Amino acid sequence: MAEPLRLADLGEWGLIERLGAFAPQGQFDDDGALVSPDGDHGLVVTTDLLVEGIHFSDTTMGPGDLGWRAAAANLSDLAAMGCHQVVGLTVGLAAPAETPWAWVEGVYGGLSEALAHYGGTLLGGDCSGSQQRLLAITALGRLDPARPIRRRDGRPGDLLVSSGAHGLSRLGLALLQGELEPLGDPELQERAITAHRRPRPRLDGLAALTASQPPGEPWRVAGMDSSDGLGQAVAAIAKRSLCQAVLERHQLPLAAAMAELPQAEAWCLGGGEDFELVLALAPAWAEALVEQLAGAQVIGRLEPAQPSDVSGWVTRPLRWADGTALALADAAGFSHFH
Amino acid sequence: MAEPLRLADLGEWGLIERLGAFAPQGQFDDDGALVSPDGDHGLVVTTDLLVEGIHFSDTTMGPGDLGWRAAAANLSDLAAMGCHQVVGLTVGLAAPAETPWAWVEGVYGGLSEALAHYGGTLLGGDCSGSQQRLLAITALGRLDPARPIRRRDGRPGDLLVSSGAHGLSRLGLALLQGELEPLGDPELQERAITAHRRPRPRLDGLAALTASQPPGEPWRVAGMDSSDGLGQAVAAIAKRSLCQAVLERHQLPLAAAMAELPQAEAWCLGGGEDFELVLALAPAWAEALVEQLAGAQVIGRLEPAQPSDVSGWVTRPLRWADGTALALADAAGFSHFH
Repeated sequence: MAEPLRLADLGEWGLIERLGAFAPQGQFDDDGALVSPDGDHGLVVTTDLLVEGIHFSDTTMGPGDLGWRAAAANLSDLAAMGCHQVVGLTVGLAAPAETPWAWVEGVYGGLSEALAHYGGTLLGGDCSGSQQRLLAITALGRLDPARPIRRRDGRPGDLLVSSGAHGLSRLGLALLQGELEPLGDPELQERAITAHRRPRPRLDGLAALTASQPPGEPWRVAGMDSSDGLGQAVAAIAKRSLCQAVLERHQLPLAAAMAELPQAEAWCLGGGEDFELVLALAPAWAEALVEQLAGAQVIGRLEPAQPSDVSGWVTRPLRWADGTALALADAAGFSHFH
Repeated sequence: MAEPLRLADLGEWGLIERLGAFAPQGQFDDDGALVSPDGDHGLVVTTDLLVEGIHFSDTTMGPGDLGWRAAAANLSDLAAMGCHQVVGLTVGLAAPAETPWAWVEGVYGGLSEALAHYGGTLLGGDCSGSQQRLLAITALGRLDPARPIRRRDGRPGDLLVSSGAHGLSRLGLALLQGELEPLGDPELQERAITAHRRPRPRLDGLAALTASQPPGEPWRVAGMDSSDGLGQAVAAIAKRSLCQAVLERHQLPLAAAMAELPQAEAWCLGGGEDFELVLALAPAWAEALVEQLAGAQVIGRLEPAQPSDVSGWVTRPLRWADGTALALADAAGFSHFH
């Protein structure tokens, strides 16, 4: 008898694909779900799990950082959908009975700090005992349904834009875990650790997109956030848009001070948790956006999918501009089923 | 040095009270949070955690039952807020890597069955590895903001109404866990197990309330669901309404066939997970509702809080009509931090 199929065999992306079959067509395509597409105020809902030992650990951050980060990860999904307003969060907290109240208080303090900064309130939640600490956050936000950001809206010829540097969060994690010796550059050290502990969701992206929209150009913005890695984000946009993404090695969005590290390219593409926006836009719009949004840069372009790719499913969504392969394994993001 | 305060010291209710301090005043008072109080369509959001070994176990239900039950628990919170429409659910799934896909498929199948029955769709979610299986469900629903159900809206003189029998789910659990021998009454046995595995959220309650509202009577409905036990629900309504609840022993909402069991009273008041509605209404409305809603019955009344109770905090929210004490410990519902 064949072994039963386990979650480890599917991986996170394979599992999400199967779970999407229980939802209406297209519902699982983006960073969040659009609930009310009618009227002026579409509602977006998005859910994230953070599990101790996988997404966080006491050795790399305090409870206030964890709370901030948990909120930021969800607000980043709202930003990636094009939300102009954060409504708030619900928080499910599971923790062992011996967990100190002070830890929980710190987590909710960090969540509240992020909400005070970006808007929205704590809406409610639930708590339970468990063997392992876990946060389940659901965020609600509002967008203009005529101005969404969707993965599938890329077109061949679009330029790919990253809202900021990538790889810093992974560098910060390496430093906090002792995987790397402290850096000679204390400013980079501090910046990387802050990027890991206190990521900033790019809720400012929408205003820059609106301000840079060329006159007469209809709203069409493809995008997602880079929480699972820059390469993963580019690949997802390319796949959903039935395109191939072409990245320029010399345009990788690396913090200048980080470029010398041997891990720079791998962490830039696959480090994950930078919570930047990755967008595909008509060239004139992309160039105007880069002028508008400090730190943003063009990183490549979308081309028609290769003829060898089966219609409706792009098997090789990424390549380097010089023609060399950019295997998805190089930019695999996270697999949370070890 | 004093030992640090742990979650086990606070208990679930003490913890929720402290967490409510991070939210706007009153936000944690009800079964769900009202997001958009303006306009014709208020949005309600509610979150529940289900943790293996605490809320579910393979020994008492299959994955399809678990999925149904997880959806039903959240839809019951929507019903308890007065929602007339289920928008949908997001699902956070945490599970060990060796979990069979067939189990996950069964859970989502059960969730989908409940959504197909009560309305709404699977909106999205997240998944992660973990040591222990866990579901974090967030439900969205719509209500008419002029017709909410809130815990705090009870008044002295109101009659307390239960939408149905209590204690069956706890009886079903006892039978499934082998805590009780199989019953002589196979119909009761079957009914109790079904109550435990396939609870029915009382989304029909709102229509019955609307139909039974006496002419000229303004909308004022206090209520919550009985997921944490009937006694806990009555006590919460009484406390929030600054009243004392008086229960009649002979009016306990017991399934007739269950009344002979020695555990009947304890499980009726404290068994939990019956997912009925517990309401406080002006007497004429309560009596009309009981006519309208099959299985509903008057179980007691609200009286002014005792003068000895500190203003703003009712310390003895429950008593029996014959004057004997009804300690909250008898109806403590669940404590999930053991």
